[in-house]
Amino acid sequence: MDHKEGHLQIEATAASAGGGITRIERRLLQQLIEVCNHPPLTIRLWTGEEIHGRPGEPSIARVTLRDRGTFFRMLLNPELYTGDDYSSGRFEIEGDLVGFLDLVYRGLDGLPETSMKARFLRWMNRPRSNTLAGSKRNIHHHYDLGNDFYKLWLDTARMQYTCAYYARPDMTIEQAQIAKLDHVARKLQVKPGDVVYEAGCGWGGLARHFAKHHGVAKVRAFNISEEQVKFAREQAKREGLDDRVEYVLDDYRNMSGSCDVFVSVGMLEHVGVNNYPGLGDVINRVLKPHGRGLIHSIGRNKAAPMNAWIEKRIFPGAYPATLAEMMRILEGNQFSVLDVENLRLHYAKTLFAWRERYEDHIDEVRRMYDEEFVRMWRLYLAGSEAAFLSGALQLFQIVFARPTDNTVPFTREHLYRT
Amino acid sequence: MDHKEGHLQIEATAASAGGGITRIERRLLQQLIEVCNHPPLTIRLWTGEEIHGRPGEPSIARVTLRDRGTFFRMLLNPELYTGDDYSSGRFEIEGDLVGFLDLVYRGLDGLPETSMKARFLRWMNRPRSNTLAGSKRNIHHHYDLGNDFYKLWLDTARMQYTCAYYARPDMTIEQAQIAKLDHVARKLQVKPGDVVYEAGCGWGGLARHFAKHHGVAKVRAFNISEEQVKFAREQAKREGLDDRVEYVLDDYRNMSGSCDVFVSVGMLEHVGVNNYPGLGDVINRVLKPHGRGLIHSIGRNKAAPMNAWIEKRIFPGAYPATLAEMMRILEGNQFSVLDVENLRLHYAKTLFAWRERYEDHIDEVRRMYDEEFVRMWRLYLAGSEAAFLSGALQLFQIVFARPTDNTVPFTREHLYRT
Repeated sequence: MDHKEGHLQIEATAASAGGGITRIERRLLQQLIEVCNHPPLTIRLWTGEEIHGRPGEPSIARVTLRDRGTFFRMLLNPELYTGDDYSSGRFEIEGDLVGFLDLVYRGLDGLPETSMKARFLRWMNRPRSNTLAGSKRNIHHHYDLGNDFYKLWLDTARMQYTCAYYARPDMTIEQAQIAKLDHVARKLQVKPGDVVYEAGCGWGGLARHFAKHHGVAKVRAFNISEEQVKFAREQAKREGLDDRVEYVLDDYRNMSGSCDVFVSVGMLEHVGVNNYPGLGDVINRVLKPHGRGLIHSIGRNKAAPMNAWIEKRIFPGAYPATLAEMMRILEGNQFSVLDVENLRLHYAKTLFAWRERYEDHIDEVRRMYDEEFVRMWRLYLAGSEAAFLSGALQLFQIVFARPTDNTVPFTREHLYRT
Repeated sequence: MDHKEGHLQIEATAASAGGGITRIERRLLQQLIEVCNHPPLTIRLWTGEEIHGRPGEPSIARVTLRDRGTFFRMLLNPELYTGDDYSSGRFEIEGDLVGFLDLVYRGLDGLPETSMKARFLRWMNRPRSNTLAGSKRNIHHHYDLGNDFYKLWLDTARMQYTCAYYARPDMTIEQAQIAKLDHVARKLQVKPGDVVYEAGCGWGGLARHFAKHHGVAKVRAFNISEEQVKFAREQAKREGLDDRVEYVLDDYRNMSGSCDVFVSVGMLEHVGVNNYPGLGDVINRVLKPHGRGLIHSIGRNKAAPMNAWIEKRIFPGAYPATLAEMMRILEGNQFSVLDVENLRLHYAKTLFAWRERYEDHIDEVRRMYDEEFVRMWRLYLAGSEAAFLSGALQLFQIVFARPTDNTVPFTREHLYRT
């Protein structure tokens, strides 16, 4: 209800600012449509006029610009301002939201990388630094939103806020998240008695799962989000696992001691490429001679900054790296890459499941936050799904070991044994 | 017989050059032993004196320096000259040859990368250029040695001169080479009717196997080695496959038309990092929208030049790249990496099988070439096995597809279905 009223208010403002569209505005709009390869969209202007991006073909969505400011902000920095204007309701998308965003991602990928505009955008959108203090601030922004919020739409099994693994296409999100943890455990050859170090543990689901189902002696799981660690500790106590699972409210850079297994699922996005060799040094310091390591992270086919709006509003300091960039973690210490798997389509499926559940609980979200937040989060979930569907983002699982370790498995057949 | 006589001649030369060992020579030898971490070796000097690298422990091999020139050449450039001196018989290794070379590789890896010496060696040992003419010259050096020679010790099934895949540890080299071709075919989802382009086809075994057992419509296999192409064409005719297999005596850079599958097994080592973006452009030019690609190549954990002796005497122009370097092939055209597998230990096992067969046919090799060649090839096979065992070399299989192709398989389970 608030939502509708909000829109009406904006329309009134737009009308009072003078409704017409000038000749220069019309020319700019035509140029935008051309640059975007005539998208199959209906564009509704603040004047009420509707323009078809690809005349004669059906539209997949209707896009409404509620005032001329929205239009100019879109020209200035489409990535950043269109996200904000969608959140505030100045920019509306009716119809296939993911399909629309998929078009946007494919369009952005088509821009020449070396253009001055692309370079300037890269500079503008450089991620924030991940110093020890910077990381804490950045992580707090996202992960300390409140456990109750994430509980509404993440899986109920292990509250995993990372890509699931759909071993079979008909799995539920709960089954796929458990399958992910087991897939990771098999890749790491986790066995009874192992000591596991985890860098960035979310709500601690992996640690508890490894302790309960893979018989590890100890998991030391690091995280700098207070809310998450509090939840994880309580949950471990409830499950009677607190003798084997230790949640450490500290930065991964402060890891000490030694482990059989190093695992990091969905933390690398927040590390920053400059800190990759340092992460490698940490792993080199703690991993035993026959230890196994796995890094699971969002990535890219080609180096590019994080989507500006996501970096600003959702994930400050985040950056999805290319495989070549990720190698900076391992090359300095000569770790040997054993296996890389790309789970891009699994993340699209995971995000679809999250968004479906998010919309099912939309009234509860509205009670927690304002309409702007509701719309922002919807755009973030839909946009991320579109990014994985369009190939703008990838999901890499990298398995590695010491270079001289000849006890590594000969084949990967053990991963698929039933 | 010639072999023994050759040694006697050298010993006589050494004796006539004066037999004693000076104080400075002894000090240099002690320093060398220290730098090499006191290897468990017995070192026999041209004077007849024996020195133990690690006193009190059993030696894994006895190393003989037949004259002082061998000793000084070893100090000057151990990688290059020790190989040559082993070939000529001036440097002898009795005992565990692979074990000795494994020690050498682990020792070399320990040298600091940034030392002036390392930098100078890198410059000295830079690989030769792979221009169109350069490639032809380099490839001729190795692959046109004569098909009869390679037939003596490669597998009799498909004459594969690349890493086999031991799906089960008890496989013969014949079974493992067929298993490799089937593993590659499954990774590429090769299906009846497909058009396959192969860059660097050796004696054409993959092309004939794909045509015979995977029902492809056409394989166009490129190779610039005349001897190999001649053999491949004759063999295809004998097997009645010449309607579906076309061997093209040309550089991969001249590929045109379009294909469903791009495959390259064991060619990248000869491409040169500077030419990687160009290789990516070739693939981008020929691969259909739903096409699949696979590159199989020797690699490294960390960038380093090819072993100087191997580059000079065995494989001119060769270079084993890191995964990050290999990404230069794919990133420019935004190909999406789906899967990377490291088959390092499979190559050690392959090389063991080749060397065993080589030694079984040593009398036939002696009839074809001189003793220097016999020893050179033994050192090359043993040294390569040691390099894979010690982790100095890796073997990567990289599967990739177009970034927007959402028809790629969800999991890799199909690779391991029986």
